[in-house]
Amino acid sequence: MAKANENYLKLKAGYLFPEISRRINEFVEANPGKEVIRLGIGDVTRPLPPAVIKAFHAGVDDLAGTENFHGYGPEQGYPWLIDTIIDKAYNPLGVKLDRSEVFISDGSKCDSANILDIFALDNTVAIGDPVYPVYNDTNVMVGRTGEANAKGYYAGVVYMPCTEANNFMPEFPREQVDIIYLCYPNNPTGTVATKEQLQAWVEYALEKDAVILFDAAYEAFITEPGIPHSIYEIEGAKRCAIEFRSFSKTAGFTGVRCGLTVVPQELKVKGKSGAEIALNPLWNRRQSTKFNGVSYPVQRAAAAVYSDEGWAQVQEIIAYYMENARIIREGLAEAGITCYGGVNAPYIWLKTPQGMSSWEFFDKLLQECFVVGTPGSGFGPSGEGYFRLSAFGERSTVEKAVSRIRATWGK
Amino acid sequence: MAKANENYLKLKAGYLFPEISRRINEFVEANPGKEVIRLGIGDVTRPLPPAVIKAFHAGVDDLAGTENFHGYGPEQGYPWLIDTIIDKAYNPLGVKLDRSEVFISDGSKCDSANILDIFALDNTVAIGDPVYPVYNDTNVMVGRTGEANAKGYYAGVVYMPCTEANNFMPEFPREQVDIIYLCYPNNPTGTVATKEQLQAWVEYALEKDAVILFDAAYEAFITEPGIPHSIYEIEGAKRCAIEFRSFSKTAGFTGVRCGLTVVPQELKVKGKSGAEIALNPLWNRRQSTKFNGVSYPVQRAAAAVYSDEGWAQVQEIIAYYMENARIIREGLAEAGITCYGGVNAPYIWLKTPQGMSSWEFFDKLLQECFVVGTPGSGFGPSGEGYFRLSAFGERSTVEKAVSRIRATWGK
Repeated sequence: MAKANENYLKLKAGYLFPEISRRINEFVEANPGKEVIRLGIGDVTRPLPPAVIKAFHAGVDDLAGTENFHGYGPEQGYPWLIDTIIDKAYNPLGVKLDRSEVFISDGSKCDSANILDIFALDNTVAIGDPVYPVYNDTNVMVGRTGEANAKGYYAGVVYMPCTEANNFMPEFPREQVDIIYLCYPNNPTGTVATKEQLQAWVEYALEKDAVILFDAAYEAFITEPGIPHSIYEIEGAKRCAIEFRSFSKTAGFTGVRCGLTVVPQELKVKGKSGAEIALNPLWNRRQSTKFNGVSYPVQRAAAAVYSDEGWAQVQEIIAYYMENARIIREGLAEAGITCYGGVNAPYIWLKTPQGMSSWEFFDKLLQECFVVGTPGSGFGPSGEGYFRLSAFGERSTVEKAVSRIRATWGK
Repeated sequence: MAKANENYLKLKAGYLFPEISRRINEFVEANPGKEVIRLGIGDVTRPLPPAVIKAFHAGVDDLAGTENFHGYGPEQGYPWLIDTIIDKAYNPLGVKLDRSEVFISDGSKCDSANILDIFALDNTVAIGDPVYPVYNDTNVMVGRTGEANAKGYYAGVVYMPCTEANNFMPEFPREQVDIIYLCYPNNPTGTVATKEQLQAWVEYALEKDAVILFDAAYEAFITEPGIPHSIYEIEGAKRCAIEFRSFSKTAGFTGVRCGLTVVPQELKVKGKSGAEIALNPLWNRRQSTKFNGVSYPVQRAAAAVYSDEGWAQVQEIIAYYMENARIIREGLAEAGITCYGGVNAPYIWLKTPQGMSSWEFFDKLLQECFVVGTPGSGFGPSGEGYFRLSAFGERSTVEKAVSRIRATWGK
């Protein structure tokens, strides 16, 4: 008799974004003609840069003839893309990587989920709170947790609250943990980790023989000097960390799908027999067996991000979004709302005024300003009383949203 | 202390295709100037059809402006692609599907590997032998097996030999099995299942409460009438089968990456509590949480396969490959070599002459004819004494290969 993976049944049915959609639809039906501005989901709105479009077309054209036709590519990605990434994205940080350490994928959501394949079930994981829901849910799905309690915490997971009190940087877990998720610049709080803070985490992981899963999907939005763009800028990180990066937000690839994962050759864990097991060959085997590489024209498009032309165009788009972030951040401040992030990340994490709950604020913002954001509690219990606004909008709508918020709260 | 998934260590190191590459390289170094013809790996060589290229470009152009820009799409695929597939690929077979039952992915290799996520570990799986290695290896990786024995069989898996003796159609397992992999048209044997044979499998699965994982990646190559293209042509299959399909071989998408999986709403298994668990919502949750949809321009390209123009062009390419298959099949027959497949599939499965082993034949074919194929034993112990030739080549090289084979064996 076939048996289902019943761990899936532990997952909460009401996912964040469907509930948001439900409330928006209800509002729109009751208020026809009102212009709703969506600053909720972290999806980009600017077109792909011209240099990327050009390379994408060239990649498609290659498939139109026999001479440059590309069938199955390497599951790990084309060497010319990997080499470009090492050269343009890592070398300038002083990070040396070997080609075998970089794996191109169809997005860092997939990678940060699939990475669990290479770890045994009996690892204890530590997850920030609030957090990108994929880290938590994939651990539930694989059976690493018990049921959720009333707060939404799953038994067996070590949650690390990130609030104003600790400046959104979690404290080291008191329990022994084996796998630690860190995401900086952070989604949803928009905050960053300094070199010293990351150094402390690396030292902690090395001491505890833990592996850090470092999500750097938003590194391109760092504007302040001295903030690490990669965990490998930290001495010792290659011995304890896997890093995920994405073209999604950096270059507008949310609908194009490309990301990458770095698994250093030096990263080893101790096996049951006592012998060391390198994780790089395991991930390589995982990708070779369960993945078939990224679409060839997409890889051509991704490589163009690093051309001189492409890079300049990408920086313009990032600057556009970060100007949105500034407008939101300063507008909220003028309305007397406390907020975080928005300097080195495209997210503004605001403290709900007058002690409102996240969903109360959501409803008020929708009803009075016709603006949609994301309730902080949707990212975890410690997100209660906070709210996320995304800077990935069109300038004019962002300005309109901010002026409506100021009209409501800035009295 | 972080712990690796040590099930990966059970996998055999020497994978088939690297060993083939090693022997080819050795030969080429020792024999400079000899033209080696590769009919080994199942990768396509014909360019994408013009209608597909046109749609692919149009999809890229949409991303160049704000008006038709597409960011995150539905994880399940765009409704317009799903509806087209149901309308053009399933309805003509008399198979009715709901939009919620079709999931677009970046390839059926990924899907046939990832599908294990939604099943409990304590299912017993039945796998054909010889077989596409992904089915076996992914079960090893997830921890469903013990170690491999000397033959290459992993403890805990029920292998179903497919040889001349049973006309390459496995017998029903005597043990209770819960998940059954079937692939028709078959890779590597190129053989097909009749409606009656599939009907018997469906009845068997329903009786045993087993789930059939049906890999239909090669259905587009069926030329004989009456052979099922989908398992859902069989009464009752929606209650026991998941089907995988691919654009890879059908439309030359091996480097483009698109496939699909059908999980019918009627497909249910019994849970531990005794209540029924539908598998469709589990797969939907899996894809929503661990996948982020297929590249938008790729989905546009895939939809064009079903336009009148695209479909006609795709049929031409398939006919080209199947003419290659005919040339190989008839040429081998004239050389006195027994072979199977090649009528409804792009693979020819030949019986090695004079009782040679698969690798002996590989070496002789390489040394004397400069032709590369795939040793049958690489697909499983029951593939020993067989050999796979692929029809995915250029016509002129296929003809050259066949004439060399005839010169060697046809004396």
